[in-house]
Amino acid sequence: MLHHLTRRSMGAAALALATVPAALAQGTPDPLPSWRDGPRKRALLDFVGAVTTEGGPDFVRAADRVATFDNDGTLWVEQPAYTQFVFILDRIRALAPRNPAWQEDPVFRAAIAGDMRAVAAGGTAGLLKLAGAAQAGNTPEEFQRTAAQWLATARDRRWNRPYTQLVYQPMLEVLAFLRARGFAAFIASGGGVEFIRAFSEDAYGIPPNQVVGSTFALRPGEQEGRVVLTREPQVDFIDDGPGKPVAIARHIGRRPIAAFGNSDGDFQMLQYATEGPGRRLGMIVHHDDAEREYAYDRESHVGQLSRALDEAPRRGWQVVSMRDDWSRVFP
Amino acid sequence: MLHHLTRRSMGAAALALATVPAALAQGTPDPLPSWRDGPRKRALLDFVGAVTTEGGPDFVRAADRVATFDNDGTLWVEQPAYTQFVFILDRIRALAPRNPAWQEDPVFRAAIAGDMRAVAAGGTAGLLKLAGAAQAGNTPEEFQRTAAQWLATARDRRWNRPYTQLVYQPMLEVLAFLRARGFAAFIASGGGVEFIRAFSEDAYGIPPNQVVGSTFALRPGEQEGRVVLTREPQVDFIDDGPGKPVAIARHIGRRPIAAFGNSDGDFQMLQYATEGPGRRLGMIVHHDDAEREYAYDRESHVGQLSRALDEAPRRGWQVVSMRDDWSRVFP
Repeated sequence: MLHHLTRRSMGAAALALATVPAALAQGTPDPLPSWRDGPRKRALLDFVGAVTTEGGPDFVRAADRVATFDNDGTLWVEQPAYTQFVFILDRIRALAPRNPAWQEDPVFRAAIAGDMRAVAAGGTAGLLKLAGAAQAGNTPEEFQRTAAQWLATARDRRWNRPYTQLVYQPMLEVLAFLRARGFAAFIASGGGVEFIRAFSEDAYGIPPNQVVGSTFALRPGEQEGRVVLTREPQVDFIDDGPGKPVAIARHIGRRPIAAFGNSDGDFQMLQYATEGPGRRLGMIVHHDDAEREYAYDRESHVGQLSRALDEAPRRGWQVVSMRDDWSRVFP
Repeated sequence: MLHHLTRRSMGAAALALATVPAALAQGTPDPLPSWRDGPRKRALLDFVGAVTTEGGPDFVRAADRVATFDNDGTLWVEQPAYTQFVFILDRIRALAPRNPAWQEDPVFRAAIAGDMRAVAAGGTAGLLKLAGAAQAGNTPEEFQRTAAQWLATARDRRWNRPYTQLVYQPMLEVLAFLRARGFAAFIASGGGVEFIRAFSEDAYGIPPNQVVGSTFALRPGEQEGRVVLTREPQVDFIDDGPGKPVAIARHIGRRPIAAFGNSDGDFQMLQYATEGPGRRLGMIVHHDDAEREYAYDRESHVGQLSRALDEAPRRGWQVVSMRDDWSRVFP
């Protein structure tokens, strides 16, 4: 932010400031009602006002208004475990009777028994093995149906709600606000692309082609003269950390002008978005609200936030306090 | 088509037929003025009318109106050589003085000398080597600028026009027509994704994130604390033949309900689109107009069309005669 402010002319700053209170004062409904007034809400309104003010020094044409959002911990809850991980374990348990050989593998045994400590002991290799066994061997269409069915019935234990209701109301407002101002919002998630596509349109209004994520290898083939695509058990791209700018460049083909994340896995995405020329916005959701949601950052195994927190001030990234900046967490 | 007609109720057929002449008769401007009346124009109007008629048996909600288009030979001219190939050779000649070692490689020597026969003798391996040397080692943004600069000045010899003016007017009308009816149009091309993104928005109104294509490996890195993505000289995905459905499923996440191609490289894309449930449209541009454009199919090295031509009737794919169905070829 400082970086941008020092580079911007005083005239531009005055224009941006003039735009924002105008939008709020003249009887226009507040586009971000679940955000408390303060520097973060102001930064959001200021940024959107500046890049959409035609003739202004920071104006960005609609086609270049690309914003990227991490999913887990940025748009919905990621504690105590990633939702997709809960899904994987449920699938492993559901499929176990048909796969007796799994009992001979300690990671599968641990997953079936619900022994999280033992699953964790299997490390990333163990997790990827479970992920493949639980989710591959089907077409993308079949998998999305399976995931959608699970999401329709599974419930988070703490709130006894479907996971798709544990999305953050303030972020839904950001998505709607950006959309109304001509932005295209994309998800760039470490989660599986097809898992997210199973709910992103209903939950966020983000269509499948605006979801970028990790992928299983997809094998083309034919059955009875028809094209059949099979999701293989090998993860062939992990859309996390340095992978996020790669996937964004590949898929979107434009550098985002705004990025929203919550963990160090979003560091390079935030860099990529905010290092471009012109006005930029980088935002980090900081989970500091144990009462209404969770409080975690540097020491967390899920959604660890440390380097991004350290570097946020000098990079001009806005750190959103869930506790202070959001008047409401869930819809 | 037959397949669909037999499956559709008579009521649905009547509705579709009633829709189309209505659109043309009641003073509405013809959305496809460069298409001559006949079965192909009728199939297009009929299809779009059917899937957009709310309450009709073939209605498809806007979010699912996905259409995919091949690029070379479907949206613009691909003879006597793919435009990107001409670009690659121009780049090799431009970069040759800085790369004296290239003179020791017969494929590079042939390319620098403009000896197409000798380049062809190098086969696919030789072409990929040239493609990498000509196009990699830069960021996606740098490469797109280079490609855009070349496209702004290079001219096709036969027409002495920029390549971006050698797009097919009837296909531009299809794109505009589909867009007006709530479709999202994507390019799915064997060409390089970033080459196409350099002109797709201006030429076709198709934004970068709706372009799917072949890709070079993209390597993430940092320079002076900033994210830098480098296009490596290795092609890591070829979006052709069986690769097209894979790339479409990955990128779009929805099976298209319409697909437009012109060669056997589009076979699986046409299959994938038309094998889905409900009303579908598969269309093949047949280059049979040596006078206004080119005439080629089974024997051509560029854009070979043989299996798709054979199977089009039984698969219900419309084969468009450039000579008979198009009253005009270029804008």
